[in-house]
Amino acid sequence: MPRVVVHVMPKPEILDPQGKAVAAALPRLGFEGIASVRQGKRFELEVEGEVTDEVLASLREAAETLLSNPVIEDVVALEVEDA
Amino acid sequence: MPRVVVHVMPKPEILDPQGKAVAAALPRLGFEGIASVRQGKRFELEVEGEVTDEVLASLREAAETLLSNPVIEDVVALEVEDA
Repeated sequence: MPRVVVHVMPKPEILDPQGKAVAAALPRLGFEGIASVRQGKRFELEVEGEVTDEVLASLREAAETLLSNPVIEDVVALEVEDA
Repeated sequence: MPRVVVHVMPKPEILDPQGKAVAAALPRLGFEGIASVRQGKRFELEVEGEVTDEVLASLREAAETLLSNPVIEDVVALEVEDA
């Protein structure tokens, strides 16, 4: 079944407290050299049937309305993986 | 500054209530044809200096210990993006 992977990240101008917490924890645990961390979301959608341009356009709309909050997040990528 | 992107997903055998909620919401909002949804995390780490094999190995360890919970999650990919 083909899979569409949707990548969502907080907009660059939005504060990301989860990412900041991870960035602060890394050196405490001995991992040095990381300037910053941002945390977003990754969705894997199993699609019934073929991923046509139409299906992909519909999924992009879903990604921008349901999977992300357009006020604070960007859909940074939409990838099709055949399986 | 080079960037390492870490992709974390719930293990296949782990129930994913967030993904199930999204999968249930999609048809209500008019998006049909999605068999299942799983929700994971995506981290973008800005690395100071070059991403050597050593740095990448250290980041993989960080990904598997700090960025994911190895009991319920898998690090499905670690990508290097030069910027």
